Amino acid sequence: MQTLNNQTFTCVGINNTISVIRSKRFRVEKILIIKNSKAEKNRKLNNALMSVNKSFIKKIDNRILSSRFKTQGVSIKFSGSLVLEEITDYEGYNDSCLLILDRVEDPQNFGQIIRTAECAGIEGIIFSKHHSVPLNETVLQVSQGAFVNMKFYEITNIRNEIEKLKKNNFWIIGLENSIEARPWYSIDYSGKIAIVVGSEGNGIRKKVLEKCDFKATIPMQGTTNSLNVSAATATIAFERLRQILREK
Amino acid sequence: MQTLNNQTFTCVGINNTISVIRSKRFRVEKILIIKNSKAEKNRKLNNALMSVNKSFIKKIDNRILSSRFKTQGVSIKFSGSLVLEEITDYEGYNDSCLLILDRVEDPQNFGQIIRTAECAGIEGIIFSKHHSVPLNETVLQVSQGAFVNMKFYEITNIRNEIEKLKKNNFWIIGLENSIEARPWYSIDYSGKIAIVVGSEGNGIRKKVLEKCDFKATIPMQGTTNSLNVSAATATIAFERLRQILREK
Repeated sequence: MQTLNNQTFTCVGINNTISVIRSKRFRVEKILIIKNSKAEKNRKLNNALMSVNKSFIKKIDNRILSSRFKTQGVSIKFSGSLVLEEITDYEGYNDSCLLILDRVEDPQNFGQIIRTAECAGIEGIIFSKHHSVPLNETVLQVSQGAFVNMKFYEITNIRNEIEKLKKNNFWIIGLENSIEARPWYSIDYSGKIAIVVGSEGNGIRKKVLEKCDFKATIPMQGTTNSLNVSAATATIAFERLRQILREK
Repeated sequence: MQTLNNQTFTCVGINNTISVIRSKRFRVEKILIIKNSKAEKNRKLNNALMSVNKSFIKKIDNRILSSRFKTQGVSIKFSGSLVLEEITDYEGYNDSCLLILDRVEDPQNFGQIIRTAECAGIEGIIFSKHHSVPLNETVLQVSQGAFVNMKFYEITNIRNEIEKLKKNNFWIIGLENSIEARPWYSIDYSGKIAIVVGSEGNGIRKKVLEKCDFKATIPMQGTTNSLNVSAATATIAFERLRQILREK
């Protein structure tokens, strides 16, 4: 299993900073805190900062900063490997759910999906290297620190990955709008599954959809065409969680 | 029942433009279409435009425009009343679901919530005049045209509105994080209900929560603190829909 070379990222905000510090996944490079800001007085943040070498923490005046940073009061620069590449298998998963993003292009949506997925107990996100938004700082920012707990697989061919997942006994569920698809709640989400969601405009590509074992749909009640992809992901991810919690 | 004085709004994009034209709720003031854009060739948009007086439609070169407009290729300026004020009652609802936003401040979230609510068959959104994001153009834009099918109640005191709803036989369900709340799927969403969701940072205010008949929670599986409010709304709104569709 290869990982991307170390990269350096910067995020702002209390949630992101705490998450990065608490995870042992990244090396903290620098934390900037604005004097007399809400962040400087935040108890949770101050607790987290106790585990950071003081030489990495700098308190500054707010004159020189961007407005986004000013509002948040704290930023963190960190480095590490975010993405797993060229996975040869999907062993080691047990009753897990992975998410496959087929060409999601909007960084707001990708970030929200990461946050939602982590809250719903999804263990990893597979996304394509091409025609998709990469894991950039906007995406990390929107995820509100959830990215530190997520496995990311950046791959070249979704169809090939689906084949690998099937060989590892994953069932593949595609979420799409069609009459042949079943209502999202009538699908069994137990065991090892991967859920595929498509791009904002076009849904899942036909060639990818062909590889799915089940097709789920969320029937629209209004006259608006479609649900935002992150709202659709929330709906299906928490339906899975409902089924799991109810069984207990 | 009073309505706000007529206001004028501008939205960009094919979805928004089609939705505004198709609804009979607004007066179309002007539609700008960029020559040779995707929008100009869009079949659905051209169908919708057939019902618009040609004097309101103008085709233009793309030199003079903002980049957001350039990407979308079409903008619509329209006027009308969006918000119902000083509602004296909530009569006329039958097995309906309303949504109450307690101080949602982020326009992206408000817009996404409108889109999700419309897709899930929620009939109206109640929000406070103070400490909340108003129904501005960003909100409308993000909703992707869903706002044209939604009833909006902009009110001054959420507690008073909840009392009025109760007098009209609505059950009030508050979504919050607490151990005394029940899992979101164990609540019965049938009949006339109103669902309360809180602000991004703080949830529902205590005084509002006291008025709720039921408290629902979505238990977080990860280490991130909380779900985004629009993802939480999607989860609960589609759980209601699941219960309704399953009954049929």
